[in-house]
Amino acid sequence: MKKFNTSPISGMQELLPGLQTEFDRLKAGIEEAFHRHGYQHIETPTIDRTEILLAKAGGDTEKQIYKVVKTAETADDADQALRFDHTVPLARYTVEHTNDLAFPFKVTQVGRNFRGERAQKGRFREFYQCDVDVIGWGKLPFGYDADVISTLIDALKILPLPGDGFLVRISNRKLLSGLLASMNLEQHATDIFSIIDHAEKVPTEATQKAFTDLGIGSENVVKITTFMEIRGSRKDVVGKLLALENSNETFVAGVNELAIVLELLEGQGLGNVITADMLIVRGLDYYTGTVFETIVPDHREIGSICGGGRYENLAGNYNTQAMPGVGGSIGLTRLFYLLQNYGMVHTSELKPVDICVIPFGESEIPAANKLAEKLRAAGKSVDLEYAGKGLGDKMKYAGRVANYAIVVGENEVRSGKYMIKDLTTGESEELVF
Amino acid sequence: MKKFNTSPISGMQELLPGLQTEFDRLKAGIEEAFHRHGYQHIETPTIDRTEILLAKAGGDTEKQIYKVVKTAETADDADQALRFDHTVPLARYTVEHTNDLAFPFKVTQVGRNFRGERAQKGRFREFYQCDVDVIGWGKLPFGYDADVISTLIDALKILPLPGDGFLVRISNRKLLSGLLASMNLEQHATDIFSIIDHAEKVPTEATQKAFTDLGIGSENVVKITTFMEIRGSRKDVVGKLLALENSNETFVAGVNELAIVLELLEGQGLGNVITADMLIVRGLDYYTGTVFETIVPDHREIGSICGGGRYENLAGNYNTQAMPGVGGSIGLTRLFYLLQNYGMVHTSELKPVDICVIPFGESEIPAANKLAEKLRAAGKSVDLEYAGKGLGDKMKYAGRVANYAIVVGENEVRSGKYMIKDLTTGESEELVF
Repeated sequence: MKKFNTSPISGMQELLPGLQTEFDRLKAGIEEAFHRHGYQHIETPTIDRTEILLAKAGGDTEKQIYKVVKTAETADDADQALRFDHTVPLARYTVEHTNDLAFPFKVTQVGRNFRGERAQKGRFREFYQCDVDVIGWGKLPFGYDADVISTLIDALKILPLPGDGFLVRISNRKLLSGLLASMNLEQHATDIFSIIDHAEKVPTEATQKAFTDLGIGSENVVKITTFMEIRGSRKDVVGKLLALENSNETFVAGVNELAIVLELLEGQGLGNVITADMLIVRGLDYYTGTVFETIVPDHREIGSICGGGRYENLAGNYNTQAMPGVGGSIGLTRLFYLLQNYGMVHTSELKPVDICVIPFGESEIPAANKLAEKLRAAGKSVDLEYAGKGLGDKMKYAGRVANYAIVVGENEVRSGKYMIKDLTTGESEELVF
Repeated sequence: MKKFNTSPISGMQELLPGLQTEFDRLKAGIEEAFHRHGYQHIETPTIDRTEILLAKAGGDTEKQIYKVVKTAETADDADQALRFDHTVPLARYTVEHTNDLAFPFKVTQVGRNFRGERAQKGRFREFYQCDVDVIGWGKLPFGYDADVISTLIDALKILPLPGDGFLVRISNRKLLSGLLASMNLEQHATDIFSIIDHAEKVPTEATQKAFTDLGIGSENVVKITTFMEIRGSRKDVVGKLLALENSNETFVAGVNELAIVLELLEGQGLGNVITADMLIVRGLDYYTGTVFETIVPDHREIGSICGGGRYENLAGNYNTQAMPGVGGSIGLTRLFYLLQNYGMVHTSELKPVDICVIPFGESEIPAANKLAEKLRAAGKSVDLEYAGKGLGDKMKYAGRVANYAIVVGENEVRSGKYMIKDLTTGESEELVF
């Protein structure tokens, strides 16, 4: 007999039923939060035209995209590949269905995306992303920047995080853009954004040296460094930004936008889970205004668990109508892996089924079925055991899949009274509906 | 500017938000039914090793499988393809994780599968399948055949079907196998199964001719035809099967198994949605015992909306341990398309959001936010409108995404009293929590 390798391909998450139960609970909690906040759920195909997917991409994306081979029966189709994020298919969807959508289009997508990158612990080639986006028609008020962030905050509350939970760090790309313009350093903007994006991962001297290596004078390095160190509450940060006395138009717009977004979030009672922080710039060129990342203060080494921002134009590659947007994403597959690794998922407690009903013998099957139906009608997940040889066998099975067991024997059927056994503590008590 | 084709690739379902809401409701209802019945949810990767996926396959599967091109960074991986059903990855999963699973393994998978077949109305290349399976270790009692069927019946109740709803037609492959063996017609078994599988789609004479063309004598044709016409309640059918006085061991086993499964289902009060029907044989060789299909009696032309059966060995290609199983599947993407086509999905009523809260001006945003949070805490999906220019604009937006609207103006904030407007009827009443 041929010997097969039955492990999943490297980089693919495959969970046992107990862990899957917990993953599903978190995913459902996130989806429910998105729904509560009025985001409309859509699903785009896993497979899309390569020319659409790669219209804007370059660099890593182009190297990591999974192309799909057409079959004999689909040979007439366009070249195809697996989507690598939700944003590109959303742009295509929004252009294709423009006349059937109401703008601003508040939309959520939760599904699997694919990137064929090098195998690495904690990196996945197939991964769930949970996205919210708001797409405007022509323009989009900054209230939606706050809307996206407060929605993601509500969603993140489902996570079993320790201590102080999470903290959303917010900035606006116009601040640094404006600052650099006022110093005539626009030609180094991409490099400087990247240096600041990495500043927390390297020693301070390395950051300083990186600026000097670009040929930036010491006076300007001080200005950038002073800017980078601004963080805290809205009042503090807006005060410090104004104290820089920078009259560059873009900078001033950035201060205003940041203040509006922070004030709206504070007004929603979220002042304790947000902070303004000029170290947040986000790596991608893509973003043009509000940017945010989310950390777990008790485990800063995890990095950002949720991020996003505002972009000037969603579908600039496919049409000429300006569609500014703001969005954010939770990378659930990687996040779940991290939660497991940090011991925040208690695997021993995870049973996929609530109650296992065990008919003692064949003649008790009808009564066991009736009882199971009653428990199901009460909202419980109920398994019925038909297979074990003796009661020991059956209880062992129940202990692996369920939290509780109920044995249905002759006496129970006669009396209509059932004992429910807690399979964790071993204690039994009479079942009361 | 380059002109892009922004339509989804042919054969991919892409729904507008209203229809997606209804699709999601049906999918969630099916998943909840599976969960209530104690089936453990798992997810297998979309991409798997080609040698695993094609270990058993042949014919159409091999022609229709979507192969995936490895990227530069995944070049060391095994050859890969997209899964075309849930059963093959389940076999791999069960072998890989045997030591961590409790048997019988009651499992459900709900997700997207892929087949690159010729474009055709109502056929999909990416489609949701909603599966339940029970995998035994060595042997598996027939109670699980009934368990799978009753679980699927519970799940199908979520569908908006007309009139009498659906009917599950049940048989057992051992009956026909035994009958053919008793007539020494085993060598024609595959052909005869196929002829019976298609019998309802062709005139009676064509079926008769097909038998005759195989060289089957008229006496045997009569016997087969008599068998094919047996259908009805358990009592009727078991009586008619016994009246054939066939002592073939396989045939007798088939009668017993069918009687057990039907009796268990009747015992669960499902006698009115099931029927025994010897025309049900299922096309695939794969099945070895119980087989079932589900029709909508008021629309028989739709064909089967849910089917399945028992198989001797789930993972015979990957290991030597016998793992008999029984399972069934709802093809939700195709089913949803059919429901739409038959006018059973009322698109005009489908709004993704419950309530749209509209602050009259900027100064009412904080109060509108507080109201929205209260409504969300009460379980509602609530959108907040920041974008429209005037009230007309804002109400128009609300009418497209939500069922109700609440305008938050100066008076409302002062009095704390809000009117909620039904956007379908146009009627307003005071909001009471």
